[in-house]
Amino acid sequence: MTQPTRRQLANAIRFLAADAVQAANSGHPGMPMGMADIAEVLWNDFLRHNPNDPKWFNRDRFVLSNGHGSMLQYALLHLSGYDLPLDELKRFRQLHSKTAGHPERSETPGVETTTGPLGQGFANAVGFALAEKLLAQRFNRPEHEIVDHRTWVFMGDGCLMEGVSHEAASLAGTWGLGKLTAFWDNNHISIDGNTEGWFTDNTPERFEAYGWHVIRDVDGHDPDQIKAAIEAALAEEGKPTLICCRTVIGFGSPNKAGKESSHGAALGKDELEATRKALDWPYGPFEIPQEIYDGWRATGAGALRQAEWEQAFDKYARQYPAEAAELTRRSHGELPTAFLAEADAFIAKVQADGPTIASRKASQNTIEAFAPLLPELVGGSADLAHSNLTLWKASKSVATDDPNANYVYYGVREFGMTAIANGLALHGGFIPFDATFLVFSDYARNGVRMSALIPAHAIHVYTHDSIGLGEDGPTHQPVEHLASLRYIPNNDVWRPCDAVESAVAWKAAILRKDGPSCLVFSRQNLQHQPRSAEQVSLIERGGYVLADSEGHPEVILIATGSEVGLAVEAKKTLDAEGIKTRVVSMPSTDVFERQDAAYREAVLPNAVRKRVAVEAGVTGFWRQYVGLDGAVVGIDTFGASAPADELYKHFRITAAHVVEAAKAL
Amino acid sequence: MTQPTRRQLANAIRFLAADAVQAANSGHPGMPMGMADIAEVLWNDFLRHNPNDPKWFNRDRFVLSNGHGSMLQYALLHLSGYDLPLDELKRFRQLHSKTAGHPERSETPGVETTTGPLGQGFANAVGFALAEKLLAQRFNRPEHEIVDHRTWVFMGDGCLMEGVSHEAASLAGTWGLGKLTAFWDNNHISIDGNTEGWFTDNTPERFEAYGWHVIRDVDGHDPDQIKAAIEAALAEEGKPTLICCRTVIGFGSPNKAGKESSHGAALGKDELEATRKALDWPYGPFEIPQEIYDGWRATGAGALRQAEWEQAFDKYARQYPAEAAELTRRSHGELPTAFLAEADAFIAKVQADGPTIASRKASQNTIEAFAPLLPELVGGSADLAHSNLTLWKASKSVATDDPNANYVYYGVREFGMTAIANGLALHGGFIPFDATFLVFSDYARNGVRMSALIPAHAIHVYTHDSIGLGEDGPTHQPVEHLASLRYIPNNDVWRPCDAVESAVAWKAAILRKDGPSCLVFSRQNLQHQPRSAEQVSLIERGGYVLADSEGHPEVILIATGSEVGLAVEAKKTLDAEGIKTRVVSMPSTDVFERQDAAYREAVLPNAVRKRVAVEAGVTGFWRQYVGLDGAVVGIDTFGASAPADELYKHFRITAAHVVEAAKAL
Repeated sequence: MTQPTRRQLANAIRFLAADAVQAANSGHPGMPMGMADIAEVLWNDFLRHNPNDPKWFNRDRFVLSNGHGSMLQYALLHLSGYDLPLDELKRFRQLHSKTAGHPERSETPGVETTTGPLGQGFANAVGFALAEKLLAQRFNRPEHEIVDHRTWVFMGDGCLMEGVSHEAASLAGTWGLGKLTAFWDNNHISIDGNTEGWFTDNTPERFEAYGWHVIRDVDGHDPDQIKAAIEAALAEEGKPTLICCRTVIGFGSPNKAGKESSHGAALGKDELEATRKALDWPYGPFEIPQEIYDGWRATGAGALRQAEWEQAFDKYARQYPAEAAELTRRSHGELPTAFLAEADAFIAKVQADGPTIASRKASQNTIEAFAPLLPELVGGSADLAHSNLTLWKASKSVATDDPNANYVYYGVREFGMTAIANGLALHGGFIPFDATFLVFSDYARNGVRMSALIPAHAIHVYTHDSIGLGEDGPTHQPVEHLASLRYIPNNDVWRPCDAVESAVAWKAAILRKDGPSCLVFSRQNLQHQPRSAEQVSLIERGGYVLADSEGHPEVILIATGSEVGLAVEAKKTLDAEGIKTRVVSMPSTDVFERQDAAYREAVLPNAVRKRVAVEAGVTGFWRQYVGLDGAVVGIDTFGASAPADELYKHFRITAAHVVEAAKAL
Repeated sequence: MTQPTRRQLANAIRFLAADAVQAANSGHPGMPMGMADIAEVLWNDFLRHNPNDPKWFNRDRFVLSNGHGSMLQYALLHLSGYDLPLDELKRFRQLHSKTAGHPERSETPGVETTTGPLGQGFANAVGFALAEKLLAQRFNRPEHEIVDHRTWVFMGDGCLMEGVSHEAASLAGTWGLGKLTAFWDNNHISIDGNTEGWFTDNTPERFEAYGWHVIRDVDGHDPDQIKAAIEAALAEEGKPTLICCRTVIGFGSPNKAGKESSHGAALGKDELEATRKALDWPYGPFEIPQEIYDGWRATGAGALRQAEWEQAFDKYARQYPAEAAELTRRSHGELPTAFLAEADAFIAKVQADGPTIASRKASQNTIEAFAPLLPELVGGSADLAHSNLTLWKASKSVATDDPNANYVYYGVREFGMTAIANGLALHGGFIPFDATFLVFSDYARNGVRMSALIPAHAIHVYTHDSIGLGEDGPTHQPVEHLASLRYIPNNDVWRPCDAVESAVAWKAAILRKDGPSCLVFSRQNLQHQPRSAEQVSLIERGGYVLADSEGHPEVILIATGSEVGLAVEAKKTLDAEGIKTRVVSMPSTDVFERQDAAYREAVLPNAVRKRVAVEAGVTGFWRQYVGLDGAVVGIDTFGASAPADELYKHFRITAAHVVEAAKAL
C-alpha cells in the first residue's frame, strides 16, 4: 500500500468494527460501517485533541450519541493513538475489557460520556458546548482565547425520535451554541426496519425551527462533501449546526448494506468475507497495515497542539494570574481551600439560629451561602425557579454573555435538563445543579441513572417531596420516588429534616465527586431540631441518633425529612408512658449504608427489634430497617388533592399513629 | 341581562376559575382566563358531546393537557350541564371534592384523562385519535359512519417544551390523524416568566415539519378568528391540525394579565374585584345568571345528538349485527366469553408441553395464542419488535387503513408510546400493549405512573430484564427497575419464571381492568418448571409454593423469573444436605400482597425466618420478605458488559451462592 486513500482509512474502521462484532458474536456493525467516512474526515481534518492526554482541558469533545456503534469510537481511539491497544478491541464486549458494549467514560480513555440510552449523548453534548461557552466568557481575555474548543456529536435516527433530542436541541438553539456540530446519520433504518413507517419528520425543518444552522443532503460517503459541510459549520458562529448526512447502514456489505440486518448483529463469516472483497480489503481480521496507522496517527499533531495551548496558557497566566489559577483549579475539579471551613461555619450558624422553615427555603439559604464560595456552581430549574427556590442573589442567566452567567432557565424540560447538567459536570469546570418537583424526577429518570452510572458530579434538587405539597394532588405528589431514587446504584439521596440537615446535604453533595446526589426538600415548614455539636457532625454519616432514650432503647423510631418532627413528637408520648424511645434521623440511607458496621450497629442495635419507620412514602422500602417484626408508617397509595395538613391526617401519617404502631409491636 | 355575548359566556369561565382559586387560595387562574374564549367557541359551536351521558361512545374527546388550568375544565363541565354542581366548584382542591387540583378521570364526570404532568395529555389525545381512526376503519361501513368523532386538546407552552410532545406529534403526523385538533395557548408566559429566555422554537414550523396542518396567528380572544380556524381544521381531513392561539394569560386582570403572577396563585381579593370591574361582571363569587347558564347548556343538544347516533347505530346493527355486537362488546370493555376458558386451556397446554425458552419468546407465543381471541389487542414496541418479540402472525401496522390494523410501530419513543397507549386504553375499544427493554421503562416512567393513577388498562411489556441481557452492558441492564416499578401504587409487575407463568401473567394483565400491568421477560432461556394443576392455578395469586420440603420447611427460598431455576437447583443441594427447603416462586409481589393473610401465611409461614430471596436486582426490596435475619442474593451495583453466563458468575447470582447464604443463616 502506498499512501492510503480516505476510503481506505475509513475502511480500517469498518473492518475493525465488523471483525470485533464478529469475534464477540454480539454488537452493531452497521453504524460504524455507515459513519466511517464521516468520522474519518472529522477526526483526521478537524478534531483538535491529543491522544496522549485524553484529559487535556482545551480538547474538542466528541460524543457518540448513537452509542450502540461503540466500535466506531473504539476504532477511532485505537487508530489515532489513544491507549486502547488492539488486544482490547479483540476483547470487545468481554468482562474487564476496555471495550464495553456501549462506550463508557469510566472504562475507556477518550470516551467523554457514556452513551447508549438514545438521545442523551446529544443532550450531554449540548451541556459540553454550554460549558465551553460559559468558561470562554468567564476566562477569555482579548487576544487570549484560552478556552476555545468545539463539541462534535454523532446521532442516529433513534436519537432524533427520542423526546430528549427535542428538549436539548431547543435549548441549544436558544443559546446559540455556535461551537456545537451534530452529524445526523440519516440512513433510513432503525431496528424495526425502514423508518418510513414511523419516522417521517422533516428533520432539517425541525432543527431550523429550533434556530439551528442546517446543512442538508450531504453524501455521508463523499469526503469532499463532508469536509465542505464541516467548514460551513465552522463558519457559522452564532448557531449550532446540524449536518444531515445521507448514509448507507452497513456500507460495503454486499448483502446487508442498507438493511436492518446489519444493525445489531454480526455480519457472519461469509458476509464478512464478501465485504472484504467488495471493499478490496485484503487484510485479515484485526490486521491494519502500518500505512493505515500512519494515516490515522494523531499523537504528534495532538502533542504539538497541546504544547501550543500550554504556551498560550502560560502567557495568559502571566498576564492574568488569578484567572489562570482559578481556571486551573476549576478544571481540576478542586474545591476552593476555604470552602470546607466556611461550609462548616455556616452549618454551625444554622444550628445555632435554629430556623423553622421549609427545607426548600433552607436549600436556597444554603445556595446563597455557598455560591459566592463556589463560582463553579451553575444552577437551574425546569421552569420552577420560584417553587424550587433555586435562584440566588447573584444568579445570572446563561443565555447572556455575562462573564458570571451561572443559572440555566431550562424551561419545562426535566430530561434535557438532567442530561445537559451531566454534560456540564463531565466537561469540567462546573458543579451543576438542576431542579424540579420530586414527582417529575420521573421525566428525567434515566438521566439521573446516567449521572450515577457515568458517573457525573451533578446535583439534582427535588422539592415538594410528598403529599405535603397539598392541593396540586396525586399527579404532583411523589409516593414511590424516594425509594426508587435510592435504589439507583451510586446515587446518594438526601431528605433532610430541617435547615441544618439541608445545609449538610448540600455540603455532602458538593464534596461528593464520584457521583450524583439527589437533594429532596419539602414545600412546607419543618421544625428545627436541637443538636449537640457532635450530632451536627454525625449528620454527614447519613443516619444518626437525634434523640435518645435514657439507657438502652426499647423502641427505635426511624424517620426522614418532614416526618422526623412526628417521630420526635411520638417519642415524647412514648417516653411519658415509660417506653424508652430512640429517634434516628436518617437523611440518607445511601450514605448510612457506607458507614462501618460498628457505627451502624451503634445507631440501630440489632437486638432492638421494636422499630417503627416513618416516611411519607412507600412502606416496603423501610422493611430493610425494621424487619418483619417492626412497623412502617407511610403511604402505599396515590395521594389526593387537599391542604397538606388534612392529607397527613387522612393518610394517618401522624405522631399518634407512630405511637400506636410502636405500642402494638 | 338579555342574550349574553360570547365574551360574557367566556367570562363565566373566568370568574368561576378565579373565584374557585381564590376560595381555595390555591390553583391556577391565569390559564382558564386566557383560554376561556377559545373554550367557549369550541364547546358551544363544535364539541359533540352529551353532558347527560359522559360515557357516550361516539362523543368527541376533549383533553386539557395543560391540566393546571383544571378550573377551565370544571367550569366547562358545570356550565354545559355535567353532573358537577356549583358546590363542587366551591370545594375546589378540597378533600373528597370532585374538583381536584388537576383534572382526574376517576374523580370527575366528563374528564377523559388525568392531566397535569405536562405533555402527556397531548400524547393521550394522540392515542384517543388513533383509537377513533382504528375503530372507524374496522367498523364503519358505507353510509354507516358509526364511529365518527374528534379529539380536541388544549396545550400550553409547557406541554410543547416537554420531549413527549415531540414524540407524540411526530407519530400523529405520520399517521395523518385528521380528526385531531390541538390548540396551543401561546401566551409567552411560563412559571419562570416570559418564555423568550428559554422557549424560542418556531412552533408552527416545527409542527409543519411533523406533517401537521398549522394555522398560525389566531387571536385567542376573537371568537370569529377562533371559529374560522376550527372550521379550517375540520376541512383538513388528512392531517392533524395545530391552531396557534395568541392569548393573554390572566385575561381581564388589570394588574396581572400577561404576567406570570397570574399563573399559579390566587389573584387576591382586590385584584379579583378590579377584574370584575374591568370585565364588567357585576356578579358575586360563584354567581352565574340564568341567561349565562342558558347560553352554555348543552344537555338538550347533547341528548338529541346521542339519540340520533343511537338511531343510526340501530340501523347499522340491523345490517351488520355481528359488527354491532362486537363494537358494543369492545366499547363496554367486555372480554369475549370464550377467552377465559381458552386462556386456561392454553396455559394447561404450555404446562404439559414444558418448553424451555426465553420468557420473551413465551410471551410472543402467548400473544400468538390470545390475539386471535382478542381483536381489541393492539400491540407495539419502541423500535424493538424483534427483540421484545411483540409481533405476531396477524400483526398489521396501524399506519395503514387495514380494517384489522393492530400493531403500532412507535419508533424509538418510549414515553410517547406509553402515553399514547394510555390514550388507546382510555378511549375504549382496545387493550393496548407496548414494549421496550426493561431499562428503558425509565424513559416512560411517568407514563407508567399515569397508567396506574388514571387508571388505564394498559399492558407494558419489558424484556431483557436483568444482567442476563449480557453484552450490551450496564446502560442496558436493569438493576433497580423491578423494585422501582413495583413501588408504583396500583401497578402490577409480573416477572415470570418460565413459559407457564408467562402465559398466566398475560392472562392476568388482560383480565385486570382497573390498572396497568408490567410484564417483565428475559432475553435468555428459562428452564420449564414442573407443576401440579393446583400449582398452575395458584400462579395467579402472585406467589406460591413451587417446590416444597418434606414436612415443615426450615429454609424458604423466594425467587422470581430467571432466578427461580437457581432456587430450585439450590434446593436440591440443601435437601441433599438434610436441610428442609421450600421454594416460593413469586412472579408478582403486587398480586401476592392482595391475597388474604391466611394464604400469605401458608406460603411464607411467619415462624420460618431462615429465608433467602434471589433476584437479579437490588436486594433492599426483598427485605420485606426475608426480614433482618434473612439473606438476599442480588445485585446492588450497575452491571457490566460480558456474556450473560459470565455476568451471573461475576456478580455471584448462582445456586451455589444461594446455598451458601441459606447455610449461613
